[in-house]
Amino acid sequence: FFSRGMQTVTLIPGDGIGPEISSAVMKIFEAAKAPIRWEERNVTAIKGPGGRWMIPPDAKESMDRNKIGLKGPLKTPIAAGHPSMNLLLRKTFDLYANVRPCISIEGYKTPYTNVDLVTIRENTEGEYSGIEHVIVEGVVQSIKLITEDASRRIAEYAFEYARNNQRSSVTAVHKANIMRMSDGLFLRKCREVAEGYKDIKFTEMYLDTVCLNMVQDPTQFDVLVMPNLYGDILSDLCAGLIGGLGVTPSGNIGANGVAIFESVHGTAPDIAGLDMANPTALLLSAVMMLRHMGLHDYGNKIQTACFDTIRDKKVLTKDLGGNSKCSEFTADICRRIQDLD
Amino acid sequence: FFSRGMQTVTLIPGDGIGPEISSAVMKIFEAAKAPIRWEERNVTAIKGPGGRWMIPPDAKESMDRNKIGLKGPLKTPIAAGHPSMNLLLRKTFDLYANVRPCISIEGYKTPYTNVDLVTIRENTEGEYSGIEHVIVEGVVQSIKLITEDASRRIAEYAFEYARNNQRSSVTAVHKANIMRMSDGLFLRKCREVAEGYKDIKFTEMYLDTVCLNMVQDPTQFDVLVMPNLYGDILSDLCAGLIGGLGVTPSGNIGANGVAIFESVHGTAPDIAGLDMANPTALLLSAVMMLRHMGLHDYGNKIQTACFDTIRDKKVLTKDLGGNSKCSEFTADICRRIQDLD
Ligand SMILES: CC(C)[C@H](C(=O)O)[C@@H](O)C(=O)O
Ligand SMILES: CC(C)[C@H](C(=O)O)[C@@H](O)C(=O)O
Repeated sequence: FFSRGMQTVTLIPGDGIGPEISSAVMKIFEAAKAPIRWEERNVTAIKGPGGRWMIPPDAKESMDRNKIGLKGPLKTPIAAGHPSMNLLLRKTFDLYANVRPCISIEGYKTPYTNVDLVTIRENTEGEYSGIEHVIVEGVVQSIKLITEDASRRIAEYAFEYARNNQRSSVTAVHKANIMRMSDGLFLRKCREVAEGYKDIKFTEMYLDTVCLNMVQDPTQFDVLVMPNLYGDILSDLCAGLIGGLGVTPSGNIGANGVAIFESVHGTAPDIAGLDMANPTALLLSAVMMLRHMGLHDYGNKIQTACFDTIRDKKVLTKDLGGNSKCSEFTADICRRIQDLD
Repeated sequence: FFSRGMQTVTLIPGDGIGPEISSAVMKIFEAAKAPIRWEERNVTAIKGPGGRWMIPPDAKESMDRNKIGLKGPLKTPIAAGHPSMNLLLRKTFDLYANVRPCISIEGYKTPYTNVDLVTIRENTEGEYSGIEHVIVEGVVQSIKLITEDASRRIAEYAFEYARNNQRSSVTAVHKANIMRMSDGLFLRKCREVAEGYKDIKFTEMYLDTVCLNMVQDPTQFDVLVMPNLYGDILSDLCAGLIGGLGVTPSGNIGANGVAIFESVHGTAPDIAGLDMANPTALLLSAVMMLRHMGLHDYGNKIQTACFDTIRDKKVLTKDLGGNSKCSEFTADICRRIQDLD
């Protein structure tokens, strides 16, 4: 009977600092009494029939059953010859929308204040098609693939997201002045979808112009939607504005509620196992997960405690400017959660 | 005999505010007694044999003869159906290196200080190949073309530039983790060329990581070299750090000394003809031009006067935070040049 109302989530702790920050998140969830049961799975590349790279069957089976995953960083040695496991996970579960809210954290000083935007990145095609050829010796082409279906789907996701999250505008980011057919198709779909959302302001902007305007005044942006590579770039740029990947959450969303939330920083092998890692990005990703599951109260409680700890500045990990250990930072958040009750 | 030692430069004033800022530059060059004679040419798209878009023959002839050009902004109505004239110029004269120094301007406040970097962008291929296809209804591909020759050429340019401009490091910017063959080839050529420049530090970094690090601390970068689209994005981002396209110069460099220097801001049709435009970007591009021609003294004199006017804050155009007209800003720079003599 302990599990009444409990939901099971697939936990992929990941490599390097992954296990430490995952156990920090688990402790904080326990303190918050969040009704989540974790099912741990490892994800390493395995070679399937026909030489195709796959994720291990027990991880796939777990995700298929639970639909929701939380994931730490995964190392991808290029030398290993397999694709990034992050990408393989997105592909395996058709997680077509990559969502990264970038919101200034009070008390964590950067050159920018009041940043409050969300990048929504098409997560399945574009420059990430993986299709490349040597045409003749010394001449290589990579194919950027843009489809009507994927473009419409991500545009719809962006407008739905805006509407459901009380956001007022969506900007389509593109280079249709250069890639007139591919980015042109993407842009056309955004325009068409925008027609159905008269409550949301729609604008379009060249990627280069967005980058320039972003570093001059990020507060002018709200929801941004874009093809795969542009989202990779812009989401990192925006993360930089609010303090980096150590404090930025991320969600990969698919159809029918399927989703994997992940910290997008690296595995930090140099500090792995030393109780020095900052679990914030994974924790805030887990907060996104709770909201995705409709568990807003738990999510809000955890987020408040985390931001209070950061604002308070007394117990911070090294990367956040403090001297505390991961476990101390985690304990401080847990204590605040208990105080909130 | 007035023209002893004079060199002729093709001047393309451009559209919108182009003529105003061009005449500001001419006035300042006159005040500095720079030994430049201007040969004005218009550039509008014309349709050549076989329906190919070309620049007008008299502009081509002038550039072929003079080798050096200075160019204001050109409008590119997508509706007109022709490619961007900026791109057509780069292509026509095989201007393979796009060079944009981004250096903080004293007295012009932005969130960043001490930015001092140069983006060097491959200017002829990559995502700008212009090759796109509809595969089937609703499925489009754009081809990113990377060649060994163009990659080696731009890498060599970047290292030569670093060496000749007392810069100590070159960073190759890429996404070879995703586009393993195309960006992989680009990166390999950078590595090979780096071997020949042991005096210059060579590093490589993912484009997304560069963007993140750039907004966190741009002073860590020096010379950056990258494929076409990444350069488009990163050069605008960097321009944003120091005050925008209104103060950022640009040069397009080809073989055998051929080069076109240009302001990369828009035509600003809303203020065209109102004596409100800021000529700084075109002026600093003209300063790059003078240095390219070996006329460093003239270049330095003009740059000093321009930066003095900006630092002084008394006579600034509206976009720079002042109330002065373009002609007043220009006159202030001319006066300082005369004072310097
Ligand atoms: C790890 C890497 C393949 C990935 C990407 O390029 O998408 C990462 O940068 C990200 O943004 O999630
Ligand atoms: C005008 C446009 C085609 C051009 C580009 O995309 O290269 C511009 O943004 C630039 O950077 O010079």
